[in-house]
Amino acid sequence: MQYPNKIKKKTEKVINYSNRGMNLENLINESNEYYVEKDIALIYKKPTPIGISEAVYTNRGRVIKNGYFKAPSTLDYNGIYKGKYIEFEAKETQNKTSFPLANFHEHQLKYIKKVLHHGGICFVILKMNGIIYLIRGSDLIDFIDHNSRKSIPYSFIEENGFVIKEQYIPALDYLKVVDEIYLKG
Amino acid sequence: MQYPNKIKKKTEKVINYSNRGMNLENLINESNEYYVEKDIALIYKKPTPIGISEAVYTNRGRVIKNGYFKAPSTLDYNGIYKGKYIEFEAKETQNKTSFPLANFHEHQLKYIKKVLHHGGICFVILKMNGIIYLIRGSDLIDFIDHNSRKSIPYSFIEENGFVIKEQYIPALDYLKVVDEIYLKG
Repeated sequence: MQYPNKIKKKTEKVINYSNRGMNLENLINESNEYYVEKDIALIYKKPTPIGISEAVYTNRGRVIKNGYFKAPSTLDYNGIYKGKYIEFEAKETQNKTSFPLANFHEHQLKYIKKVLHHGGICFVILKMNGIIYLIRGSDLIDFIDHNSRKSIPYSFIEENGFVIKEQYIPALDYLKVVDEIYLKG
Repeated sequence: MQYPNKIKKKTEKVINYSNRGMNLENLINESNEYYVEKDIALIYKKPTPIGISEAVYTNRGRVIKNGYFKAPSTLDYNGIYKGKYIEFEAKETQNKTSFPLANFHEHQLKYIKKVLHHGGICFVILKMNGIIYLIRGSDLIDFIDHNSRKSIPYSFIEENGFVIKEQYIPALDYLKVVDEIYLKG
């Protein structure tokens, strides 16, 4: 007679964390929810700015009948971590050899400079060639100020970027990298 | 013979700064633009979060054909000033004797606590009885934690609020009051 409770096989769960089909934005949003829940940080994606050309009042309240998306001039995410102001942008590219600067809206690069000027922590989270990098705003600005190129070669990203590893919870613990880069010592 | 150029009367411009017909939100937005322009601070109104139930692609890009407004769980404005994280809400009330707490969305009051916990500067700019007050988040939370009342009596606001005066440029220099309350010494 067997004792099913005792000879029960260990369930082998092989979880490939990097392959849950979440895009970069979802990884970040999920991590931000974790940070808020655990009282680690308050970081949110800013709503996309909308222009409204037609709206009607219904019993559900005001409803937009004609609206369009405006180009943002600030970055996607901002918030507070360990008393510090944080702002960043998330980008994914399918390009393998270089990251086109056209991925940024006109005012965003100038805006990065401004955030740094005011003492904020500012960076870009970039997914390229299957790897997620944190690129410091200062490195990005430095590249742009000293190059006339319209795209950043991958070699620059490999040399200057800090790899953020995907994991289980939180899915993308980018604040660990922020700690190491910005808040040590 | 008269010399019109010489006897020209001084044009008397009597500008009543408090009476330009701008509502509180416009006063704040205009001041924020001034702060950004003069490199004093980066503070923006967050776009209202929108839910989209129908969108179509046109030659102008993606256009919203059915959208609704979501209740915000954070506050209206955030940004960075002198390296500090700032977040606040702007409210106007026609009530004369008390400010109803129903003016806040469900999660907003809890959110004020969170911002304070993370070391941010957090307050409410309240226009009531024709006067614009800055109410510290900590005072607001203190009131709520020690009262079961659903509205804040005006006497509390008069005692604990800091008056922000309207002026010419910027229209509402609330950062001057922030300096005095939070950043002195």
